[in-house]
Amino acid sequence: MQTLGIGLIGTGFMGRTHALAYRAAAGIFPNLPAPVLEMVADIDGAAAGRARQQYGFARATTDWRALVADERVQVVSITTPNVMHREMALAAIAAGKHVHCEKPLAPSVADARVMTEAAEAAGVRTQTGFNYIKNPILKLARDMIAQGELGEITGFRGIHAEGFMSDPAIPYSWRLDPAGGGGAIADIGSHIIGMARYLLGPITEVMADLDTMVKQRPAAFGSSEMRAVAVDDAARLLVRFERGMAGTIEANWSATGRAMQLGFEISGSRGTIAFNQERLNELQFFKAGGEPSRSGFTRIEAGPAHTPYSLFCIAGGHQLGFNDLKTIEVAEFLAAISSGEANGPDFREALEVQKIIEAAIRSSSERRWLAIES
Amino acid sequence: MQTLGIGLIGTGFMGRTHALAYRAAAGIFPNLPAPVLEMVADIDGAAAGRARQQYGFARATTDWRALVADERVQVVSITTPNVMHREMALAAIAAGKHVHCEKPLAPSVADARVMTEAAEAAGVRTQTGFNYIKNPILKLARDMIAQGELGEITGFRGIHAEGFMSDPAIPYSWRLDPAGGGGAIADIGSHIIGMARYLLGPITEVMADLDTMVKQRPAAFGSSEMRAVAVDDAARLLVRFERGMAGTIEANWSATGRAMQLGFEISGSRGTIAFNQERLNELQFFKAGGEPSRSGFTRIEAGPAHTPYSLFCIAGGHQLGFNDLKTIEVAEFLAAISSGEANGPDFREALEVQKIIEAAIRSSSERRWLAIES
Amino acid sequence: MQTLGIGLIGTGFMGRTHALAYRAAAGIFPNLPAPVLEMVADIDGAAAGRARQQYGFARATTDWRALVADERVQVVSITTPNVMHREMALAAIAAGKHVHCEKPLAPSVADARVMTEAAEAAGVRTQTGFNYIKNPILKLARDMIAQGELGEITGFRGIHAEGFMSDPAIPYSWRLDPAGGGGAIADIGSHIIGMARYLLGPITEVMADLDTMVKQRPAAFGSSEMRAVAVDDAARLLVRFERGMAGTIEANWSATGRAMQLGFEISGSRGTIAFNQERLNELQFFKAGGEPSRSGFTRIEAGPAHTPYSLFCIAGGHQLGFNDLKTIEVAEFLAAISSGEANGPDFREALEVQKIIEAAIRSSSERRWLAIES
Amino acid sequence: MQTLGIGLIGTGFMGRTHALAYRAAAGIFPNLPAPVLEMVADIDGAAAGRARQQYGFARATTDWRALVADERVQVVSITTPNVMHREMALAAIAAGKHVHCEKPLAPSVADARVMTEAAEAAGVRTQTGFNYIKNPILKLARDMIAQGELGEITGFRGIHAEGFMSDPAIPYSWRLDPAGGGGAIADIGSHIIGMARYLLGPITEVMADLDTMVKQRPAAFGSSEMRAVAVDDAARLLVRFERGMAGTIEANWSATGRAMQLGFEISGSRGTIAFNQERLNELQFFKAGGEPSRSGFTRIEAGPAHTPYSLFCIAGGHQLGFNDLKTIEVAEFLAAISSGEANGPDFREALEVQKIIEAAIRSSSERRWLAIES
Repeated sequence: MQTLGIGLIGTGFMGRTHALAYRAAAGIFPNLPAPVLEMVADIDGAAAGRARQQYGFARATTDWRALVADERVQVVSITTPNVMHREMALAAIAAGKHVHCEKPLAPSVADARVMTEAAEAAGVRTQTGFNYIKNPILKLARDMIAQGELGEITGFRGIHAEGFMSDPAIPYSWRLDPAGGGGAIADIGSHIIGMARYLLGPITEVMADLDTMVKQRPAAFGSSEMRAVAVDDAARLLVRFERGMAGTIEANWSATGRAMQLGFEISGSRGTIAFNQERLNELQFFKAGGEPSRSGFTRIEAGPAHTPYSLFCIAGGHQLGFNDLKTIEVAEFLAAISSGEANGPDFREALEVQKIIEAAIRSSSERRWLAIES
Repeated sequence: MQTLGIGLIGTGFMGRTHALAYRAAAGIFPNLPAPVLEMVADIDGAAAGRARQQYGFARATTDWRALVADERVQVVSITTPNVMHREMALAAIAAGKHVHCEKPLAPSVADARVMTEAAEAAGVRTQTGFNYIKNPILKLARDMIAQGELGEITGFRGIHAEGFMSDPAIPYSWRLDPAGGGGAIADIGSHIIGMARYLLGPITEVMADLDTMVKQRPAAFGSSEMRAVAVDDAARLLVRFERGMAGTIEANWSATGRAMQLGFEISGSRGTIAFNQERLNELQFFKAGGEPSRSGFTRIEAGPAHTPYSLFCIAGGHQLGFNDLKTIEVAEFLAAISSGEANGPDFREALEVQKIIEAAIRSSSERRWLAIES
Repeated sequence: MQTLGIGLIGTGFMGRTHALAYRAAAGIFPNLPAPVLEMVADIDGAAAGRARQQYGFARATTDWRALVADERVQVVSITTPNVMHREMALAAIAAGKHVHCEKPLAPSVADARVMTEAAEAAGVRTQTGFNYIKNPILKLARDMIAQGELGEITGFRGIHAEGFMSDPAIPYSWRLDPAGGGGAIADIGSHIIGMARYLLGPITEVMADLDTMVKQRPAAFGSSEMRAVAVDDAARLLVRFERGMAGTIEANWSATGRAMQLGFEISGSRGTIAFNQERLNELQFFKAGGEPSRSGFTRIEAGPAHTPYSLFCIAGGHQLGFNDLKTIEVAEFLAAISSGEANGPDFREALEVQKIIEAAIRSSSERRWLAIES
Repeated sequence: MQTLGIGLIGTGFMGRTHALAYRAAAGIFPNLPAPVLEMVADIDGAAAGRARQQYGFARATTDWRALVADERVQVVSITTPNVMHREMALAAIAAGKHVHCEKPLAPSVADARVMTEAAEAAGVRTQTGFNYIKNPILKLARDMIAQGELGEITGFRGIHAEGFMSDPAIPYSWRLDPAGGGGAIADIGSHIIGMARYLLGPITEVMADLDTMVKQRPAAFGSSEMRAVAVDDAARLLVRFERGMAGTIEANWSATGRAMQLGFEISGSRGTIAFNQERLNELQFFKAGGEPSRSGFTRIEAGPAHTPYSLFCIAGGHQLGFNDLKTIEVAEFLAAISSGEANGPDFREALEVQKIIEAAIRSSSERRWLAIES
C-alpha cells in the first residue's frame, strides 16, 4: 500500500481539524494512499509537542522550514494565518511537496497567482480548504444542476452569515487587518463564493457594497485603546455568472445569533434547491410539473444514495458532521495526489475566488460594476 | 353608531379580498364605524351582479364613475389593474371620498405624486394595500426595533420571491407591460420595499440589477405568437437606509416552487429577527447576551400578547390567515377615517415606495447607485 | 335565495367564533342559504347586547328558551359550557331547529346518545364543533388515505397537547369538574379522537392511562383555599382501529409552552403523512418508491388545489387561519341543512367520540383494555 | 502514556463504526489511554483481512476465541448479532477483559443478567452501545432536568421510528427471530427506552401493545417461500416512571420514510424540551415565565458550551455527526477503564433496558400492566 508522509504547519483551530481528518481518512476511504503523520510544526514548541502526542505525529518542530525540507514529508498542510500562506506554500512547492492550504489562500490576487503558478509549474497537487462543498448533499446539488434537473438556472441567492464579530467589544485582531484576514468578504465570503462557483461555474461581474458597522474596536478585550477598523463587517454583492444568470451573495460576520448560516437558494425553470449549513444533512428540493395538490419542497436527507455518505455509515439517518466534511476533503486530496488528477478546489480555484473578493472590495470602493478578469 | 358607505371597484382577486375584509371588519373590531356595502362596480356586469349578491352590496354597476359619484359611498376601494388607479383615485378624491387603493399605487412616481398631493389637498384619508405588514407579528417586529431590543440595526436582507411567472409558457399579460404591472420589482417588490420601510424607515440609496430571464412569452396560453418582455422577472437591490445601515432586497416572480417567500432577516448589535410569510404566525428572535448553552433563535408564535390577535381569537395557537391581515388593513383604514389620523400606509407612503421602484429600474439600466429623492 | 335564521347561545370564546363564522360564510361560499343573524342569547344581558351590536344580530336576549322558541330562528348554535348542551339541544330539537353544538357534545355518553337519537328522530341536521378537521389540508390527508396513496395504513400517532393548565397556580374551574369539562381527555382529547376517526375510521378498543399531575388547585387565582382535582391533566391511549391497525393518542393540557400541538403521523406501506396544527397550512408527505437520492418528506402547502382553499384566496401561499376553518364548518353545516344530507361531524359522530372518551376514563381506572361498543 | 489493546469482533455495520471510533478517540480526547488496535475477528476471513488493513489492526483472525484469549487485547468490542453476545461476553469477562457490546445486550433478561453479574463479579468495565445518548445536546437535556430547570417533570413522549422494514418485500432475517433481533421493541426500542432512563430515571410499570403489520415475509429477496413473523413491527407502550410521572414510548421499524425519527418531548411545570435525532445538533427548549410576547421554543444548537463539543470543534455551528457520538461513547468507555468508574450505559444499565423490553412483550401478550422488577 502506498503511503504519503504528512507535515502539518499550525496547530490551532484548523490545524487540529486537519490532523483529525488525516487520522480519519484511511479508515473511512478504501484504496487511498495511507497518510503517515510525519511531522507537525508550530512556533509554540509546547503546542507542537502536544499536537505530536495527541494526533500521533512522529516528530514536532518549531521550524516550519525544517518540516518543509523533511524528506519523509510529501504533503504539507498549511493552517497558519493567511499572511504566511505564500511563503510557506512557495517553499513547500519548491521542495516538491503537495500542498494543502487553508482558505483564503492569500491576502491578495497577486500572491494567490504566484502560488498557483508555482504549483502548476512544479506539477504538484494543491488543495484549498473550502470544506463545506465536500458535503455529499452538495455533490447532489451540483449533479442536479449539471444534469438539468432544475432546467435553466435563473437565480442564485448565497449567504454566509455568522455572528462572531457582532459584539463591538470583540477586540481588534489579525482578522481585521486588510493585509491579514481581510474582512468578512475574505474570511467567510470565500466560502460562499467558492460554493457558488462549485455549483454554477464562473462569476464574471460583481457590484459590491461593503459595510463596516463597528468602526473601531478595542486593542484587546477590555482595553480602552481603540483601533480603527479598515475591513468590512458585511459585504453584499450583486453578481453575474458566465452561464448568463444573476444573483446575490452576502458575507456577514456581524449576524448576531448565527453560528453558521451558510447557504443558498438556486432557482431554475424546472426546479429549485435550497441549502443551509445549519442543517447540513438536508437539501430542500422543489420539482416543477408535479401534481399541484401533492407538490412542495422535499427535504432530502443525506443517506447512502449520496456518495460518499455510505463510507461513513451504511444506513440512512445517521448524519454527517463538520469533521466528516474535512475528512472527505483530505481523502479527495490524497486521491488527487495518487491519481495525479485534480478533483477539488486547488490553488487555481482559490485564485479565482480571490479575484472575486478583490473585485468586490474595489467595486465597493469605486461604487461600480467590475468585470472579473479571466 | 357611525357608518361608512363602501364602494368597491373591481371584483377580481383583490376585489373579492376587499369585499370579504369589509364584511368581516365590524364583527372583529369593536368601536369602528360600521362599513355599509353600498355599491360594487365591474366593467363586466355579470361579475358585478354576482359580487353584489355574494358580498351583500346594495347595488352593482358597470360604471365606476357612477360609483364614485354616489353620495352614499364615502369610501372608494380600487382593486383594478395599476394603470387605472390614477384616474379612479383622482375622481374619487375630487368627489371627497376616502380612497383605499391596491398596490402598487401607480405605474409611475409622477402618477403616484399627483394622487398623493390631490388626496392631501382634499384632506381625505387614503390607504394602500400593503397588507402583509398588518400582521401582528410584524407589529411586534417593528416595536422590537423601535424600542432598541435588537440594539443598533446592522443589516437587512429582504426577499419577496414567488414562482408564478417561472414557467416560460405563462403568456404575456398586463403584468408584463412596463406601463402596467411593471415587472417583479413593482408587482411584488413593492411589498418587501414597503415592509423594509415599515420596519426600518427610509431607504436613501439603491443600486439594482434587474434581470429578465424569460425574454419573450406567448401572446396567449399555447399561442405561437411571441411577445418580447420589457420588464424584469427578478430584481436584486443593494440598499442604504437613512438610519445608516445597509441591506439587500430581492423581488423575484420566477422562484420556482415558492408561493409566498416574503420575508427578512434583520440583525442588530443585540439581537436578530427573521420572518417568512410562508409561516406568517411566527417570528424568529435571537437575543444576545444570554447564557450561551441555553441560547438560540426563539420561535415566537402570534398570540394574544400581539395586538390585535386577540380580537380574532382570545387563545394562543389559533393562527391568523391572509384574509385576517386584510381585515386588519380595512379596520385600521376605517379607524383612520374615523379619527382623521393616518395609521397605515397611505398614498404618501406608497409614493415613497414607488420612488424606490423607479430608482431601481433606472439604477439597473444605468448600472450605478442612485439616491432616492426625499 | 334561501335564508336561514341563526340563533346563537353563548357569547364567550366560542360564541364569538361562531358569530364571526356565520357572518363570513355567505361571502366566501357561493350557493349557500344565506345565514341571517336573528338572535343572540347570553345570561349576561350586557354581553348579549354587545354581541348583538358587534355581530349584527337582530335581537338579543338573556333567555335561551326564548331564542329556541323564536320562529325566525331555524338554526341554534350552542356555545355554552358542556353541562348545558343537553338541555339546550333537546329543546332546540323539540322545536324543530337544526343544532350546531360545540364539543365535547356532552359530559356523558348517555347524554350524547339522548341528544343524537332525539335529533335523528326529529330529522333535523346537527353539527359538532370539531373545527380542525375542516382544514383543506386534512381533506387532502383523508383523500390520500381513502384512495390508497399511503398503501395499507400501519400506524397512527395522534397528539393534542396544550399548556394552558400547566401552571399549578391556575385555579379550579368548570373544566376540572368531572361532570363539566371532564379533563384533558374530554376537553381537547375530543379533537384528536375526532381527527383520528375522520382520517382512519372507527376505533374499536382502547387502553388508557390518565394522569392528574396537579392534584389540587386554588379555588380562585391566588386563593389559599385548595380544591382537589378529579379529572386528568393528561391522557395516554393505546388504540386499535376497526381497519386492523393500532396507534396511540395523547391528550395533554399541561404541555408547557405548547399553544396548539394538535397533530398526527400516519404511516402506511407506501407512504407517510404528518400534520401539526401549529403549521396548519402544511402537510408533510413521504411517498415510497421514489428514486432514493431524491426522496424525502415533501411539505405540501395548502393552496388552490385543495378544496375549498380557493374560495378564500385564488392564489397559493396565502394561508388560512383558524377562523377560516370555523367558516368552513359553518358553511358545510348550512349546505347540509340545504341538501338534507349530513356532511360533517354530526351528533352521531360526537357520540362515537364520547364513547371513546368514556371508555378511556374507565379503562384507566380499571387498568385494562376496553372495547368500544358499536 | 497508558495504552489499551482493542480487539474487535464483527466487521459489519457496527463493527466498522466501532473501529472508526477507536481510531478517532485518542485524537479528539486528551488524556485518554491510547487505544491500540490489536486484533479484529470475523468468521469471514476475507472481511477480517480487509478490516485489519483498512482500520489498521495489527492482526486478523476468524476465531473470536483467539481474540478473546490474546493477551495484548484488553478491551473486547462485540458487534455480532445479539444471539452471540452472551457467549462472547462471558468468555471475554472470564479472560479479564473489559467488554464493549452492542445493543441490545442480549435476547433475554436472563442472558443479560448472567452477563452483568459475571462482569460485576470479575470487576471489569462494560459498556453497551446506546450511542445516541452520548450527544452533548442530550447531556444538556439531562442536566436541565436534573437541575430542575423544567420544574417538576409531568410527561414524556418518546419515539424511535424508522422505515427500514416497512416494505413487505423485505425478507425474513435474524432480526425477525424472537431469539435473535427480537422485533422493533428490542432492536430500536432499546434506544428510546435507554434514552428515557438516561434522562428521567427508572421506569417502573409498562403496558404495551405490540403489532406485527407484516405477518409473513419472503425467505429471501424475491423468494416465493414465505415465513411467518413472530416479532413486532411496532410497539406502543404506556409507561410509569419511578419519579412519579407517566409517558408513552413507541418503537416502530415500519415508519415509512423515516430514517431516524428518534426523539422525545419532555414537559415540566416550568419548561419543556424536545429532541429529534433527525436534527441531532438541536434541542428545542421552552422556558415558562418569560414575557409572553417574546416567548416560544428556542432552538439551542450544539456548540462549545456543550461538553464535549469543543473537542470536536472549537467554534459553534460546526455540527457533530453520528460517528462523533460513537467516538464519545468509546472515549467515555476508555476513561471508565482508566478511572475504574463506570460513566456510561454498562451491562447493568442494559439489563434494566432489557427488563422493560421483556415486560413490554409480555404485557402485550397478556394485555395488562406489568411492574418492572427492580
